[in-house]
Amino acid sequence: MDIIVANNELKAKAFLQEIEGKNPLFIATVATTETGKIPGLSAAGANPDFTDFTPPADAELLLLGKCKSIQGVPITPDGIPTPALITTSALHLADIPVLIVDGGVKVKPQVPYIDVNSSPGRDIRSGDSVDNVEEVIERAKVVGEHLAKASDYLVIGESIPGGTTTALGVLSALNVDAQGKVSSTLPDNPHGLKAEVVATGLGAAAQKFGNFRGDPIKAISAVGDPMMAAVAGLVIGGSHQAPVLMAGGTQMTAVLAVINALEPNALCNIAIGTTRWVTQDLSSDICGIVKQFCDVPIIAADLDFGSSKYPGLQIYETGLVKEGVGAGGASIAAMAKSGGAVDKQTLLKEIERNYASLMQIK
Amino acid sequence: MDIIVANNELKAKAFLQEIEGKNPLFIATVATTETGKIPGLSAAGANPDFTDFTPPADAELLLLGKCKSIQGVPITPDGIPTPALITTSALHLADIPVLIVDGGVKVKPQVPYIDVNSSPGRDIRSGDSVDNVEEVIERAKVVGEHLAKASDYLVIGESIPGGTTTALGVLSALNVDAQGKVSSTLPDNPHGLKAEVVATGLGAAAQKFGNFRGDPIKAISAVGDPMMAAVAGLVIGGSHQAPVLMAGGTQMTAVLAVINALEPNALCNIAIGTTRWVTQDLSSDICGIVKQFCDVPIIAADLDFGSSKYPGLQIYETGLVKEGVGAGGASIAAMAKSGGAVDKQTLLKEIERNYASLMQIK
Repeated sequence: MDIIVANNELKAKAFLQEIEGKNPLFIATVATTETGKIPGLSAAGANPDFTDFTPPADAELLLLGKCKSIQGVPITPDGIPTPALITTSALHLADIPVLIVDGGVKVKPQVPYIDVNSSPGRDIRSGDSVDNVEEVIERAKVVGEHLAKASDYLVIGESIPGGTTTALGVLSALNVDAQGKVSSTLPDNPHGLKAEVVATGLGAAAQKFGNFRGDPIKAISAVGDPMMAAVAGLVIGGSHQAPVLMAGGTQMTAVLAVINALEPNALCNIAIGTTRWVTQDLSSDICGIVKQFCDVPIIAADLDFGSSKYPGLQIYETGLVKEGVGAGGASIAAMAKSGGAVDKQTLLKEIERNYASLMQIK
Repeated sequence: MDIIVANNELKAKAFLQEIEGKNPLFIATVATTETGKIPGLSAAGANPDFTDFTPPADAELLLLGKCKSIQGVPITPDGIPTPALITTSALHLADIPVLIVDGGVKVKPQVPYIDVNSSPGRDIRSGDSVDNVEEVIERAKVVGEHLAKASDYLVIGESIPGGTTTALGVLSALNVDAQGKVSSTLPDNPHGLKAEVVATGLGAAAQKFGNFRGDPIKAISAVGDPMMAAVAGLVIGGSHQAPVLMAGGTQMTAVLAVINALEPNALCNIAIGTTRWVTQDLSSDICGIVKQFCDVPIIAADLDFGSSKYPGLQIYETGLVKEGVGAGGASIAAMAKSGGAVDKQTLLKEIERNYASLMQIK
């Protein structure tokens, strides 16, 4: 299978063996924050204010094959389409079911979704970014547990603009050194700006680096985002019943740190699934973050758009976008479910087909 | 297995064979209407205004094992506990996962639920009882399809006070003769009052009996309830992927009539699962309704509380409550999943245990 192991070879292979041929359920957790609108932080939308529409539009793309909240599909300021295009192609090829969890979106998706009582996040520079964290975790746990009972395993992705900045916030608050290690949708990773935003947030919360150690709920409430609460709950609840593939890049390491602080036992039934663009990214270090506090396996879909006939897809090879909406995890799940029949080639063909149709290229 | 076939023996046995040993997902669709508050119509609540709290409390009982929106559990005016007690006992015994769909409740449950953009129903005497029917059906279809992909089959129940009156409304509107045939939570079935309410509703909609024939969306919008739209969508979407057990009494026949008008092909993957108290009820006639328009099998859990040590459960044998919150279908699913290891005896023991604990009987 076109899957690369990036961390903990032994456990990664055991995880892959466990999920091969099995029927997963994919859960996309969507959320938005005011942090995502800070200029220069995120490329998950044509402009900062547009980031409110990216997650609901991603949800619509996954369930309907087209967006309703916006025309076309979410794009970066350069016109590069959302990674949900990869996700939807992978899920479709392997006939994998999808559910949406509203992890706190300002604009509700025009598709059915699971409500866990989340609200959108504020700007983390306020030091008071997320409401209701504990209750959202508890409700999401219930959902994760029941959905994991219903299916063979769970793949849980996210769509939240600005999520690597809030990831840096929560990792820092939990005493994990993630400075210069979180990824970016942008080719030039704005590490300096992210650090500044996080420092302002931690300062506003009148807390010093590491002071939230052992209190992940406070960490999310102060400098996190609402997706983290929902996903942490889903993963913990799910892991009680079945394996869970956390589908995402460095944003998922913050959720992992939260889980590690809340219920470390859950970690033995978890892997992170992402893309090669994340694990081989020179401007971030997903393994360097995770290894500081656990040995959860990290696996990556060996996607390669270098041979694509579309420049808009080729550009992924330059480090733009990289991951999102569980693109890597969904690709891994599609490969595993089909026993390798879905591979990087068939996947690229399906992605190109959907790209041409959604971008109305003739 | 302690299951009785009430309609279409051959298809019923084939359906039971298909689900034996399989892992279902139970979906409880909760909704409320102003119709449910018409005095004398429903016993699903200690008093009419309390019916707003019964469905959310039922949802909480299924997911948490206790209610949050109310103290104790929902009861009839006589103090008889909600049939969700049977449902939760059955699901627990067979370790069957549960999800809640908000089919339009006024009071939101304090547990996670799936949002399909439903709203509570008005009084059908207005002739304009439910908004947004078509969109709710479409959203619910998407949910049903994905959940049926994730699990072996679906069991779909409802909790909506006053639901047999709106069932009579929609059946009448769709030209099915259900006069004197719908069931009741009350031992003295108020057929006259139901007929009067429905006649007023059809009159207000300036439509005569049968005039909505072939237009089930208009029928629900005029004299139905929002549960019907959500469940019809869930069942249709689900039936594309897996068998669906519609868990309920005569209320489900109205949904069946809606499905028959919208997408008759769906019927071949559907059965109705209810209780012996419904199929053997002398004051209603579930088979007499269904046989008018289709040959969907009807099966019933052969529950018998006659030997219970608790008078509050024994009273079910007098025809009080009879069914609700998918009690019969959940019992059938528990028996089928366990290959008969869960039977009427083990089920009664578990129900008694939960009854004593929830009613705080020492």
